[in-house]
Amino acid sequence: MGFSLGSLLGGLRSGPDEASVNSVTLFVLLLCSCIVIGHLLEKNRWMTESVTALVIGLCSGIIILLTTEGKSSRLLLFNEEFFFIYLLPPIIFNAGFQVKKKQFFRNFITISLFGAVGSLISFVIIWLGTLQLFKSLDIGFLEVKDYLALGAIFSATDSVCTLQVLNQDETPLLYSLVFGEGVVNDATSVVLFNAIQKFDLSHISSTIAFQFVGNFLYLFLTSTFLGVAVGLLSAYVIKKLYFGRHSTDREVALMVLMAYLSYMVAELFDLSGILTVFFCGIVNSHYTWHNMTESSKVTTKHTFATFSFVAEIFIFLYVGMDALDIEKWNFVSKSPGKSVGVSAILLFLVLVGRAAFVFPLSFVSNLTRRSQSEKIGFKQQVTIWWAGLMRGAVSIALAYKQFTMSGHTQLPGNAVMITSTITVVLFTTVVGGLLTKPLIRMLLPQPKQSSSMLSSETSQKSLTVPLLANGQDSEADLGANHIPRPTSLRMLLARPSRSVHYYWRMFDDACMRPVFGGRGFVPPVLDSPKEDILH
Amino acid sequence: MGFSLGSLLGGLRSGPDEASVNSVTLFVLLLCSCIVIGHLLEKNRWMTESVTALVIGLCSGIIILLTTEGKSSRLLLFNEEFFFIYLLPPIIFNAGFQVKKKQFFRNFITISLFGAVGSLISFVIIWLGTLQLFKSLDIGFLEVKDYLALGAIFSATDSVCTLQVLNQDETPLLYSLVFGEGVVNDATSVVLFNAIQKFDLSHISSTIAFQFVGNFLYLFLTSTFLGVAVGLLSAYVIKKLYFGRHSTDREVALMVLMAYLSYMVAELFDLSGILTVFFCGIVNSHYTWHNMTESSKVTTKHTFATFSFVAEIFIFLYVGMDALDIEKWNFVSKSPGKSVGVSAILLFLVLVGRAAFVFPLSFVSNLTRRSQSEKIGFKQQVTIWWAGLMRGAVSIALAYKQFTMSGHTQLPGNAVMITSTITVVLFTTVVGGLLTKPLIRMLLPQPKQSSSMLSSETSQKSLTVPLLANGQDSEADLGANHIPRPTSLRMLLARPSRSVHYYWRMFDDACMRPVFGGRGFVPPVLDSPKEDILH
Repeated sequence: MGFSLGSLLGGLRSGPDEASVNSVTLFVLLLCSCIVIGHLLEKNRWMTESVTALVIGLCSGIIILLTTEGKSSRLLLFNEEFFFIYLLPPIIFNAGFQVKKKQFFRNFITISLFGAVGSLISFVIIWLGTLQLFKSLDIGFLEVKDYLALGAIFSATDSVCTLQVLNQDETPLLYSLVFGEGVVNDATSVVLFNAIQKFDLSHISSTIAFQFVGNFLYLFLTSTFLGVAVGLLSAYVIKKLYFGRHSTDREVALMVLMAYLSYMVAELFDLSGILTVFFCGIVNSHYTWHNMTESSKVTTKHTFATFSFVAEIFIFLYVGMDALDIEKWNFVSKSPGKSVGVSAILLFLVLVGRAAFVFPLSFVSNLTRRSQSEKIGFKQQVTIWWAGLMRGAVSIALAYKQFTMSGHTQLPGNAVMITSTITVVLFTTVVGGLLTKPLIRMLLPQPKQSSSMLSSETSQKSLTVPLLANGQDSEADLGANHIPRPTSLRMLLARPSRSVHYYWRMFDDACMRPVFGGRGFVPPVLDSPKEDILH
Repeated sequence: MGFSLGSLLGGLRSGPDEASVNSVTLFVLLLCSCIVIGHLLEKNRWMTESVTALVIGLCSGIIILLTTEGKSSRLLLFNEEFFFIYLLPPIIFNAGFQVKKKQFFRNFITISLFGAVGSLISFVIIWLGTLQLFKSLDIGFLEVKDYLALGAIFSATDSVCTLQVLNQDETPLLYSLVFGEGVVNDATSVVLFNAIQKFDLSHISSTIAFQFVGNFLYLFLTSTFLGVAVGLLSAYVIKKLYFGRHSTDREVALMVLMAYLSYMVAELFDLSGILTVFFCGIVNSHYTWHNMTESSKVTTKHTFATFSFVAEIFIFLYVGMDALDIEKWNFVSKSPGKSVGVSAILLFLVLVGRAAFVFPLSFVSNLTRRSQSEKIGFKQQVTIWWAGLMRGAVSIALAYKQFTMSGHTQLPGNAVMITSTITVVLFTTVVGGLLTKPLIRMLLPQPKQSSSMLSSETSQKSLTVPLLANGQDSEADLGANHIPRPTSLRMLLARPSRSVHYYWRMFDDACMRPVFGGRGFVPPVLDSPKEDILH
């Protein structure tokens, strides 16, 4: 994925001669209103921030359409490279930074299975499905590669959407499965995209299959390694430079820049930037974060969350406004039925493709889980299937990458593909966004506590304990509010995975933390507020 | 100053087809190395962060020149609009946010005098000086407007450079005078630039002079009003939405976006964005900041400082790399003497122009100060003169705006102007950056405490007291370490200015704070860490 910065920074271009301080101002204004309205609707059990932003984006698109008399609906041109280089990294990094690490690594095999094998199954189904079903609709010229690309585009679960509907505190297992799948997914789709470019996939031989697997493993391991390496480097540098005479700004700036660097380096070497920055986030939260001054800890934690929050709203606002772009709908308006047909087929294939791997792979995964309570129940499988259905900005960005030349849809076939992608994205995001929370509440009722109580309690807690312990509650809190607690018998049965964690802790304490810092391995600063409280 | 976003976001363009993830990666890497090297050189009494960044920029410029075999020295094209829209606002906002308000407003008249009348004097001297002195050097064709523009470009004190060499804690009076002058300056130069466009300045009549003064007052008042209004709006919104069920991210995002909005709206209406965002920062620190949760307070304080810090380094790195751009030096290499001559003339005029208003206006200002200790001494005047000499990225940006078409220097005369501007900027920044600290230490020795001790003490304190009281130490600390304390007799004599502050406090407590919040006017949250410490 080598991007051109030229076109990338032209990403927000609204035409060389138009008044565009205008556009930025209006966009910032819309972001502000999204935040305020999102806050006011917070108590509403249906709306999520993403749906609010989408709706506001659509509304302002309509207003702009009316004021420009149908010429343009968007302030800014949707550019997939702007999205991949500026908006996606903070979101994924923050997810890695805030993820409950124990939960994530405990389910690592299942997550990899879903992310790698699962997306492959989904890819094949969507690819072959479109190849068959599009024949009946006469939709312009599509090459073999376009069908393969459709498979890759629509097999990708959108991690950003997942973050919006699943709550890490309410449903930690589902969250780590679906979100983790989305991250691993990215490596798969990079490999798929490369494979589409390189190999002649119409004749699959065992050699190609092996090459494919080898490629995936190489990419997965190098991306992970890069993320971990950059994370450790930043931990080491920040630990070494910590002499009390520290400047908070420098510390925070370095951490942010290093994290971003990991993503950019990964993109530079055609690795999976998402995977890299995710693992960089995990390492940062495990080591680097503990090496910082108390104010830096608070600052980084909230800064990453804020960056991610704003980027998410930005994306949905963007997609909402872009959806009304008149140019591509002009093509479609000549044959509306075709577009509806394509959207319906894609939606159907997405549903089927996801079902085709979630249930079988859950079954396989359950075989490895010995205790009954650790198995993924049917209701949970349904939720995983549903929550991963959403396609979002990643799909749109990939569709633009494949089907347009610099933001303009030239061939009718391509225009139909873009509008159908947008239709699918809008439909799944709005329906998924509105129904997922109620669905989870219906299928997986929380004993006693309502989820809204729980979440407000969580935010309360992060005000009370605060500034010191939070953001790092993974190890401490996990026992308290995660689904079923294993009894002592099950603990015995489940020993293997426990032992891996045990040996990791030994290694971590003996080798890693003394070098890279981490909780309890950084000498307490004498003038820290913690000390103030104690004395 | 209406900017085109199109060219603006093309600001980092390195050519449409070049590999430029490359460039961004390298640039982030350079930023990281600036931070680390800057930290390692911190104990060095000569080097400032800006000089370090400049030198690193120059070095990498040389390396790139060598590797590309003399084709290009820069990763990214310097674009004045990128600078004005993304890099400048966070720096100025942060300056307003962290400024010692009492000190600033106490010297407000002097600051306005320096910023408005002073830059006008400087402008006239540089304009007429270049008009006379350039005749002897045969440097291509320059229009009357170009000379006027030179006056406007070189009469502007660079607030960013000032921040680098003056320390608010060490020399609060000088800091607020020189930095405040730089801010007010901006309004003057916007008016000047507009006047150059509109009026026929070769025939100055009293009407035009009145129009000019009226314009300035209008611009100054509307810009300030806008900044204050947006600041109050954000204070009000954040206070009203504060129901305990607050999300920190939302709060932080809203505050940052509103601050940015104030700048963009000002630019939209051709006001002085710098003045607006500066006052927005002041209002934010006086009201909004106190309405937030404790973690938001810590986060915003450090986030603004970090943004500003990174933007500053970015600018100097940028200028350093841009300085070696081969294209414009090609023109110059044909007649090196000419370029040296122009640079020398400009430097001389900057020195004279600044001297011509600092000393007379200080004298005028001293007439209004009754007590001897409040007067601006001669040594202080010399320091003010010297510290404001630096010309920086603002000058380069304005020079590009005036003398190039989209980053390329076409006419030989223009190329000479650009290279001379860069020469003057490099010279003043490096010499000023290296010598100002020693100069201040020589001219204004601090009684007993060495300044490095003082600053480390300050940073110590901000770790001990922290998370609650700091960032807002203006009212509390001012008495302690600011220059000479008035005795009771002088207090009587100096009552007028004191009374203004007294009435403002009355008004503030009675009308403003109940509505907009502020220190002591926001009901303490029960679960705040402050409470934790008390109980």
